[in-house]
Amino acid sequence: MELKGRSIIGWGSGEPGGRTFTAINPATAQSMPPSYVCASLQEVDRAVRLAAEAFENYRRLSGKDKAAFLREIATGIEGIADALAVRTSQESGLPEARIRTETGRTVFQLRLFAQLIEEGSWVNARLDRPDPARKPVPKPDLRSMWRPLGPVAVFGSSNFPLAFSVAGGDTASAFAAGNPVIVKAHSAHPGTSEVVGEVIRAAARTRKMPEGIFSLIYGAGAEVGMALVKHPLVKAVGFTGSESGGRALMDAAAARPNPIPVYAEMGSTNPVFLLPGALASRAAQIAEGMHGSVTLGAGQFCTKPGMVFVPAGPGAEDFAQALMRRMADSPAQVMLTPQIHSAYNGLVAARSKESSVAVVAEGEDSSSVPGARGKATLFAVDAREFARNPGLAEEIFGPSAIVVSCANRAEVIEIARGLDGHLTATIHGTEDDLREYYDLVEILEQKVGRLVFNGFPTGVEVGHAMIHGGPYPATADGRSTSVGTQAIYRFARPVCYQNFPTSALPDELKDGNPLHIWRLVDGSLTKD
Amino acid sequence: MELKGRSIIGWGSGEPGGRTFTAINPATAQSMPPSYVCASLQEVDRAVRLAAEAFENYRRLSGKDKAAFLREIATGIEGIADALAVRTSQESGLPEARIRTETGRTVFQLRLFAQLIEEGSWVNARLDRPDPARKPVPKPDLRSMWRPLGPVAVFGSSNFPLAFSVAGGDTASAFAAGNPVIVKAHSAHPGTSEVVGEVIRAAARTRKMPEGIFSLIYGAGAEVGMALVKHPLVKAVGFTGSESGGRALMDAAAARPNPIPVYAEMGSTNPVFLLPGALASRAAQIAEGMHGSVTLGAGQFCTKPGMVFVPAGPGAEDFAQALMRRMADSPAQVMLTPQIHSAYNGLVAARSKESSVAVVAEGEDSSSVPGARGKATLFAVDAREFARNPGLAEEIFGPSAIVVSCANRAEVIEIARGLDGHLTATIHGTEDDLREYYDLVEILEQKVGRLVFNGFPTGVEVGHAMIHGGPYPATADGRSTSVGTQAIYRFARPVCYQNFPTSALPDELKDGNPLHIWRLVDGSLTKD
Repeated sequence: MELKGRSIIGWGSGEPGGRTFTAINPATAQSMPPSYVCASLQEVDRAVRLAAEAFENYRRLSGKDKAAFLREIATGIEGIADALAVRTSQESGLPEARIRTETGRTVFQLRLFAQLIEEGSWVNARLDRPDPARKPVPKPDLRSMWRPLGPVAVFGSSNFPLAFSVAGGDTASAFAAGNPVIVKAHSAHPGTSEVVGEVIRAAARTRKMPEGIFSLIYGAGAEVGMALVKHPLVKAVGFTGSESGGRALMDAAAARPNPIPVYAEMGSTNPVFLLPGALASRAAQIAEGMHGSVTLGAGQFCTKPGMVFVPAGPGAEDFAQALMRRMADSPAQVMLTPQIHSAYNGLVAARSKESSVAVVAEGEDSSSVPGARGKATLFAVDAREFARNPGLAEEIFGPSAIVVSCANRAEVIEIARGLDGHLTATIHGTEDDLREYYDLVEILEQKVGRLVFNGFPTGVEVGHAMIHGGPYPATADGRSTSVGTQAIYRFARPVCYQNFPTSALPDELKDGNPLHIWRLVDGSLTKD
Repeated sequence: MELKGRSIIGWGSGEPGGRTFTAINPATAQSMPPSYVCASLQEVDRAVRLAAEAFENYRRLSGKDKAAFLREIATGIEGIADALAVRTSQESGLPEARIRTETGRTVFQLRLFAQLIEEGSWVNARLDRPDPARKPVPKPDLRSMWRPLGPVAVFGSSNFPLAFSVAGGDTASAFAAGNPVIVKAHSAHPGTSEVVGEVIRAAARTRKMPEGIFSLIYGAGAEVGMALVKHPLVKAVGFTGSESGGRALMDAAAARPNPIPVYAEMGSTNPVFLLPGALASRAAQIAEGMHGSVTLGAGQFCTKPGMVFVPAGPGAEDFAQALMRRMADSPAQVMLTPQIHSAYNGLVAARSKESSVAVVAEGEDSSSVPGARGKATLFAVDAREFARNPGLAEEIFGPSAIVVSCANRAEVIEIARGLDGHLTATIHGTEDDLREYYDLVEILEQKVGRLVFNGFPTGVEVGHAMIHGGPYPATADGRSTSVGTQAIYRFARPVCYQNFPTSALPDELKDGNPLHIWRLVDGSLTKD
């Protein structure tokens, strides 16, 4: 695996010259060759123009042809799994085993989208049949389906260097819908980005895709990314990262002469509610699961449960004690980047200074060892102080959580009502608990994209029913998901054809249903 | 029908005092009693708070119960059809026959949404079944469906005082999805708004809906509307009107601490392309249809075809001459408001002064008669000048259009490529034409929400396949439609339930499918 350190722009490469940067191994704080050259604004423009040209061809392809391209990428990624296990692990600080699992998730996603578009019913084909005899005016023949948007800009995330990055869910769903993709590589893992990018480019050539269907842009600051979001030919944006970064892209997209949708998956603290019956019967077991979920991957999951609400009563103290013990026994873990480690330390230090908050457990301290190792930290506060201090509900990205003691049911409900948008909320309870706290479920349905019962929110299943989204600030657009097959609808829009001859219609809408897909005909689903 | 002139705020009324305004009959320029009192900001806040409280109950209702409410509104509107035919006609300048047709459309929409939610499959229920034996981790039980957003602000339009106003498509789809609605009445037809609003309130009481499910707010300027859009408890906005008005709401919504979606249906010039075969065989017939569509309702439809592209060749001159004759013979028509009439006159005057543009036909001039009567005006320009002057592609709201002569196929294609977003595009052609101009269809698919073949874009059918949307600036969000059953998705978002006991799930997701709706189970549609 020879790394070149250049942007991938269609079939060509970025020019040398200009700013450079390197990956940093967060475990050693050492920089890793090669140097990566930041793209110029001219190169960004070229990538987008190539994408717009490629769109003219790519949007015409059948689901089968696009699926073959996605499968080719998946096979290519499997072919470099060993190399990724080494380089990605070095760039991200994540263990090799995790990288291998994430590689599997990445190829699974690509193949799931391939299957979806090969089957074809995702386009939501609808036919309202004509009635020439209708009075006072004839009823027209109307047929509609979802079509691609055009060039999509995807921002790779730091915490999933494969599954939410160059060939991750945003790219897979944008390609599946029929759009070219320009990826802004995350600067924490440029080598991983390059090798995956080369796999996509090779797959594009093998499958005879048009030049510009894919480009990969490097940039060390915000300039290159902003240029992408503001480019008149870019039609949508996918992003996974911080709330401040996501909001900056949202604001830039909303201020364009022609605003475009931004799908930013941002901050989330993923509240966990422990209800009395569950707490009384399995406090220690919940504490074990909670600890695992908080510290998994050094707490660097967007679904990490960062706050847990514990009503007073049997089991409450057992839960707190058990969680404290486990957090105190936690080894320090390498974090994704020195910057993320430093931001984590800063947020933990600031929260530690809050007079109403107690630091109740700290894990292994490795501050004397080189490298970006995060110390597990558990905070505690009571519900009234929590309600007074909105900062305590904000995400601390890393292996930390806060236990919030609630005096009674009313405090639990009041806290739930006061929550902002999150990706997930979790309830531990019995069926009796759920009946007693029926309003808790109703409140949380309005706050999150996914409700978890007697489990933990980390581990986001990729499937048809998954929703990985939620109201702002969890995401920019709570009507969408960035995981699972419904993610494809972020990068498509419906188009209607009135009184078109069948020869000029897309196959999905032709008489006789030649693709044998599900269609809504006069309001009824049918494959006829 | 006794008009009170007050906002409707839940079961109560707006207070007297503060600014007032009256309706103006545009045919006579006379003001019509009573005076309407603008809502105070406190009243806006109260309406939104009541809506947020009502949401807690309304969102729980079954599809059948919400459908009964919609049907009650429809029946109520039918009961006041005679009164509407008089008052709405006076307030809007639209003929009584048109008002009766629009009343029919309004109740049809309400009943179509009632049918949709009674049947229930619209929620897009998805179940991914669990696999406890899966390695390395068990596969969870995941179920998702679309749920309502919360209070929706709807801005009534001037040009559809019934079908896109107080009980129009936005309100019907927001109610159907499970949301309370606060309507900002359009100041052009306050009396119509009040009587329809009272019908909705009566239906809400009859069907035992919670107070706040509906409010109707009057305001003469932008203040009241902006307060609605910026209110923290408002979750989405529906708007039909001008590009400047829609963009102001979009910008305000995007700048909120928690941005919300705005569905603004704004400016559109609805390009019409005449292809050689059609032009050669039926130039006069197309001119007749074009004239009817341009002047229908005094040209005040959002789908009015405002520009027609005519390639040189047989029939081109016949078309132009026939259209000119018909436009010259057009009677002046009363427009919706004195302001709209004056804006129309201003835009027509400005375009008349463009040196490259010719005024080739003018209809009846009624400037000596009182009242806001619009004079039909036809412009002509050649393609090269058109391409140089982007203002010529902008909407003139009223009975006007521009004929653009194209020297050849290349000019037609270049113009199509340069178009902004529109609601519709129309092609007149033979099947041979479509083959020759295959790229025209491909380009227009990217520019509009609906493509019309051998017809005219006015007359927007309400059904399952209709898309009344299109890329910016036609709408704020080209991924949506404001007409037809898919409009419901603007006011909903998906929520996923992981490992929930069936007793705590919504009926749509319960084991055994008690509502007998279509569900996607492990990726396959089924009613089992």
